[in-house]
Amino acid sequence: LPRNTVTDAFGSANTPSLFAIIFGVNPETQPVLSDSFWHVFPLPANVFTVFTRRNSGEFMSTFGLIEYKDASSEVRAVYDDIMATRKTDWINNFWKAIAHDPALLQRTWESIKQIMAPGALDPLTKELLYIAVSVTNNCHYCIASHTASAFGKGMTDAMFKELQAVIGMANETNKLVTGYQVEIDDRFTPPLPR
Amino acid sequence: LPRNTVTDAFGSANTPSLFAIIFGVNPETQPVLSDSFWHVFPLPANVFTVFTRRNSGEFMSTFGLIEYKDASSEVRAVYDDIMATRKTDWINNFWKAIAHDPALLQRTWESIKQIMAPGALDPLTKELLYIAVSVTNNCHYCIASHTASAFGKGMTDAMFKELQAVIGMANETNKLVTGYQVEIDDRFTPPLPR
Amino acid sequence: LPRNTVTDAFGSANTPSLFAIIFGVNPETQPVLSDSFWHVFPLPANVFTVFTRRNSGEFMSTFGLIEYKDASSEVRAVYDDIMATRKTDWINNFWKAIAHDPALLQRTWESIKQIMAPGALDPLTKELLYIAVSVTNNCHYCIASHTASAFGKGMTDAMFKELQAVIGMANETNKLVTGYQVEIDDRFTPPLPR
Amino acid sequence: LPRNTVTDAFGSANTPSLFAIIFGVNPETQPVLSDSFWHVFPLPANVFTVFTRRNSGEFMSTFGLIEYKDASSEVRAVYDDIMATRKTDWINNFWKAIAHDPALLQRTWESIKQIMAPGALDPLTKELLYIAVSVTNNCHYCIASHTASAFGKGMTDAMFKELQAVIGMANETNKLVTGYQVEIDDRFTPPLPR
Amino acid sequence: LPRNTVTDAFGSANTPSLFAIIFGVNPETQPVLSDSFWHVFPLPANVFTVFTRRNSGEFMSTFGLIEYKDASSEVRAVYDDIMATRKTDWINNFWKAIAHDPALLQRTWESIKQIMAPGALDPLTKELLYIAVSVTNNCHYCIASHTASAFGKGMTDAMFKELQAVIGMANETNKLVTGYQVEIDDRFTPPLPR
Amino acid sequence: LPRNTVTDAFGSANTPSLFAIIFGVNPETQPVLSDSFWHVFPLPANVFTVFTRRNSGEFMSTFGLIEYKDASSEVRAVYDDIMATRKTDWINNFWKAIAHDPALLQRTWESIKQIMAPGALDPLTKELLYIAVSVTNNCHYCIASHTASAFGKGMTDAMFKELQAVIGMANETNKLVTGYQVEIDDRFTPPLPR
Repeated sequence: LPRNTVTDAFGSANTPSLFAIIFGVNPETQPVLSDSFWHVFPLPANVFTVFTRRNSGEFMSTFGLIEYKDASSEVRAVYDDIMATRKTDWINNFWKAIAHDPALLQRTWESIKQIMAPGALDPLTKELLYIAVSVTNNCHYCIASHTASAFGKGMTDAMFKELQAVIGMANETNKLVTGYQVEIDDRFTPPLPR
Repeated sequence: LPRNTVTDAFGSANTPSLFAIIFGVNPETQPVLSDSFWHVFPLPANVFTVFTRRNSGEFMSTFGLIEYKDASSEVRAVYDDIMATRKTDWINNFWKAIAHDPALLQRTWESIKQIMAPGALDPLTKELLYIAVSVTNNCHYCIASHTASAFGKGMTDAMFKELQAVIGMANETNKLVTGYQVEIDDRFTPPLPR
Repeated sequence: LPRNTVTDAFGSANTPSLFAIIFGVNPETQPVLSDSFWHVFPLPANVFTVFTRRNSGEFMSTFGLIEYKDASSEVRAVYDDIMATRKTDWINNFWKAIAHDPALLQRTWESIKQIMAPGALDPLTKELLYIAVSVTNNCHYCIASHTASAFGKGMTDAMFKELQAVIGMANETNKLVTGYQVEIDDRFTPPLPR
Repeated sequence: LPRNTVTDAFGSANTPSLFAIIFGVNPETQPVLSDSFWHVFPLPANVFTVFTRRNSGEFMSTFGLIEYKDASSEVRAVYDDIMATRKTDWINNFWKAIAHDPALLQRTWESIKQIMAPGALDPLTKELLYIAVSVTNNCHYCIASHTASAFGKGMTDAMFKELQAVIGMANETNKLVTGYQVEIDDRFTPPLPR
Repeated sequence: LPRNTVTDAFGSANTPSLFAIIFGVNPETQPVLSDSFWHVFPLPANVFTVFTRRNSGEFMSTFGLIEYKDASSEVRAVYDDIMATRKTDWINNFWKAIAHDPALLQRTWESIKQIMAPGALDPLTKELLYIAVSVTNNCHYCIASHTASAFGKGMTDAMFKELQAVIGMANETNKLVTGYQVEIDDRFTPPLPR
Repeated sequence: LPRNTVTDAFGSANTPSLFAIIFGVNPETQPVLSDSFWHVFPLPANVFTVFTRRNSGEFMSTFGLIEYKDASSEVRAVYDDIMATRKTDWINNFWKAIAHDPALLQRTWESIKQIMAPGALDPLTKELLYIAVSVTNNCHYCIASHTASAFGKGMTDAMFKELQAVIGMANETNKLVTGYQVEIDDRFTPPLPR
C-alpha cells in the first residue's frame, strides 16, 4: 500500500483540509477539484480512492497563502522581522494571506510591532485587550490566534476565565444601557478627574 | 423675577434636558410640548420666553431614573451596597435606570461586583477590557462611564492612549482577517501550550 | 418684543435643534454659524442675543425631512397609506428622511407593511423582535421609535423589562460562546425535530 | 471496487459535506445519519466503511436547500428570473435556502434586482460596497459569494487589495473616533455643500 | 476487518470531527494528533490508515468540554438542575465548555433560568428574541442551539420564517436610519403613552 | 448688557456645548455644574440666568481638541500635511482629538493618505466604501465626516441614495443568510475565476 503518498498529501501546507488519498494518482497535480470532477473523473479500475471534499463553512484565503520559500525579498524581509521580533521560526496564516499586498503587510506589521510592544501597558494586557475586541467582533481567527498568543505570553487559565467573564458581562450591560436608553451622567463628561 | 419657577423646571427629575424658562406661565402643566405648540402658542406680550427644546439624538431613559429618596427599600439596599463597595456617595444613571426592574438591578450588581473584584486580573485591567468591549460595541454611555472609572482606578493618560491604539488596531486586523478569509492555523487549535 | 421671530425660528422644520433668538437680526440669513462667528460677531449694543448652538452628537438628516405639504403625489400616496394602515395622522421622521428616494420609500414601506402584519407571529411580538435587533445594533432612533410603537401595541412595563433582560443575557452568552470557542452540538444540526 | 457508488455519494447535491462511502449499502436511503447510527449500525462483515461525519462549525441550512427540480412553479419563476438576469445557469445556496418562504424569496430578489442594477453607481462598485458591509458584519457566506461575484464583474486583484485596505482602515478609525469620543464638527452638519 | 474500532472512534464524544481509522492501532491513546505526527508517524506495514484532519474554520472549545462523568460535584449540581429544569437527559456543549469556570457556570445558569422562565413574556417568545439577538450578533452556535430550542418549544415553520423576515427587515431599516442620519421624533421621547 | 461675558462663554474651546449666560456671575469658576447646583444655587435677585445644560448623549472628546495654535511642532507638521494634501485650510476634530498621541496621529494619517489615494479604485469610491463601513458600524462621527467628504469629492444625491439602498439591502441579506444558516457554495471557494 502506498501509504507514504497518503502521508505526503496530509502534510501539504497549502491544502490543510482538502486532500485526496489517491493510490497511483499524483495529488500534487490536482490540489483543488472542481465540482464536475466528482461526477466525471474516470477512475482507473485499479485505483482505490477516498476523497474528503473541502467543507462549506470552512475558510480558504482568497488568494491563498504565500509561504516563505515562495515569497519576494520584500515579503521575506517582513517575515524575517516578524520571526526575529517574536523569537519564533514560523509565520502564521494572517501574514501569509495579506502578503499578496506587500504594502499592507509592511504597514500592518510596523503598526502591530509598535502598538503591541511594552509601554504603559504590558504585552500580555495588550493581548487580553485584543481578545476582548476579537470576541466582541466575533472574529474566530483572531480569537484563536490571540488566545494562543496570550497563553504564550503568560496568561494563566484563571486569567482566561476572568477575561471571558468580563467580556460577557460588558456585552450584557452595554445592551442594558442601550435598551433602557440611559443618559450619560454629567460626572462622566470630560474633563475627567485623575 | 420668578426664578424659583426656573429652578423647579431644571430640577424636574423626569425632564433632565427639556426645560422652559417661562416667566408667568406654569411649566408644570406642560412638561412635554407638542410640535404644534411651538407654532401656535399665543405668548402674552409681557412674557419673555426662552425655550430650549430637547434635542433629538439625546437619550432619556425609558422609565426615567429612580433617585435614592424615591427608591424602595429593596432598591436602596442595592444602592447602599454599590456606594459601600465603591467607597462613593453617589449612584450613576445606569443603576437608576434599571432599578425599575429590581431583580435585574440586583442580579446585575451581584455579577458586576463578583466579576470586577480583584482576582487573577486586577480591577484596572478589567476596566480597560470593559472599555475595549464598549468601544467595539459603540456604546457611548459605557465608554464614558468606564473611561471615568478607569481614570479613577489609576489609568494614566499614556495607558489610555495605548489602550485606544490597541483597540483601533485590533478592529482593523479583525477585518483584514475576515476580508481575506484567512483559515485558522493548526497551531492555534486547542489544546494550546502554556 | 419681536416674539414672532422667535416662534418662526423654533418652527423651522429643517432646523429642529439649531435656533437663534435674535431680536432685530434676521436669523434666516445665517442658519448655520461658523466657529469663528462665535468669537468675532460684533453684536450691536441694542441687540440681546441668546444662541443655542446645535450640539455635536445630534443627528440632522442628510437631506432634511420632507413634510406632507411639500411632498410629491408619489410620496404622498405612501404617506397616506402609512397613516391609513397605522390608523394615525402623522408620519415619523424615518419616512420623511428616506422620502428623498421615492423608490426606497415605497419598497421599504411595502416590505414593512407585509412583514409586520399579523401572521404566525402577532404584531406586538414582531415589535419586540424589532427592539431586540435595534438594541443589539445600537440604533438609537430605532430603539426609540419601536419602543414607543410597542407600548402603543400593548407592551406592558413588565414585558419591556423581561425583553431587556433577555436581550442583555443573550448578548452575554453570545460572547461567552464565542470567547470559549464552543463547537456546535450534533443535535443542533438540521434537520431539527419539531 | 464499486467506485461508482462512491462517486454518486459525492455528487449528492443535498449532502455536500456529509457523505458515506459504503460499499454494498445504498447511501441514498440514509443521507443524514443520527448520532445513534454511529454506535449501533450493524455493519455486515463484507462491508468496508469510511465515514466522514459532518463537522461542527459547518452550517447546514435550517430547512435544507430547494433545488430547481423540487421547486414549486412560484419558486421556479424566481429562479428563472435570477438565472436570466444574471445570464447564468445555476442558483446559489442563498436563494435555495430562503425559497422555503416564497414571499421572502420574491421580495428579496425584486429588491436586489432593482438595487444592484446599473444606476448612478455601476454594478461593480455596488458589489464592492456589498463586500464592505459583509466584512464589517463578519458574514462569511456573504463575503465568499460577493467576492466571487465581484471578480465575475471585473474586480481585479489590485482592486480587491485596495478594497480590503479601506475596509480595515475604516474599521480602525471608526473605533478611534468612538474611543476618543470625538464630537462632530459643525461643518459636517447638513445641509452639506456639494 | 476491525470495524468495531472504527465505530468507537466515530462515537468518541470528545472528538466529533477528528477521527482516525487505524486498524490495529488504538485511537483512544492519541485523540489529538500534533502536526509533526502526520509527517513522522512510523506506520507499521500491515496498517492501512485513513486520516481526516480537523479542519481549520471549525471550533474546538479552548479548554475542551467537561462531561458529566468527569465533573466535580459542584458542576454536576448545575448539570443536574439544567436537566431537571429542561426535562431532558443531556447537557449541550455551551455548559460543558464554561464548566471550567464553575462560578461562571452557576451564575450564568441561575440568570438564564430566571430570565427564560414564563413571565410577562412566554418562553417561546423569549427564544425568538434570543434568536433575533444571536442572528444580529452573527453567533452561529447560539443560532443553532436556540433555533433547535425554539422548535422544541413549539415554534412552527411559519413562525421561523416570519421571525427571519423581521430580523432581516429590522437590520435593513436600522442601517437606513443610520445612513440617512435620521433625528429622533419628539413623540418618541419618554415618557411614552401606554 | 454684559455681552462680552456671553461671547467668552460661547467661545471657550473646551466647553463647546455647556455654557452659561450669567449676568454678574463669573462662569469661569463653575464650568461644570453638579446636579445639586440646579436645585440649591442661590440666585441673587438682580441676576437673570439662562442655563443650557450640556446634554447627555453628546460627546466631548476625552482629552479635548488640540488646536493648531496650541500644537507641538510634531503635531503641526501632520496638520500641515493634512491641509496640503486635502487642499484645505482647516483640520477636523478627529485629528485634533487623537493629536494627544502624536505617534497615533502620524501613523494614522500616513496610512489614510496612502490608502485613500487614487489607485485601482478612485478616491470617491473609497469614500463610499468608508461610508458603508461606518454605517454598518453605527459610527455617527464617521458617517457625518465621510458623507461630507464624499459630497466634496463629487458624490451626487443620486449616488448617495443608491449607496444607502445597497448598504440597507446588504445588511438585510447578511442576516437572512445568517438566520437561515446557509452553507457556502463550492463555487465560492477560492481560487475564484477572474
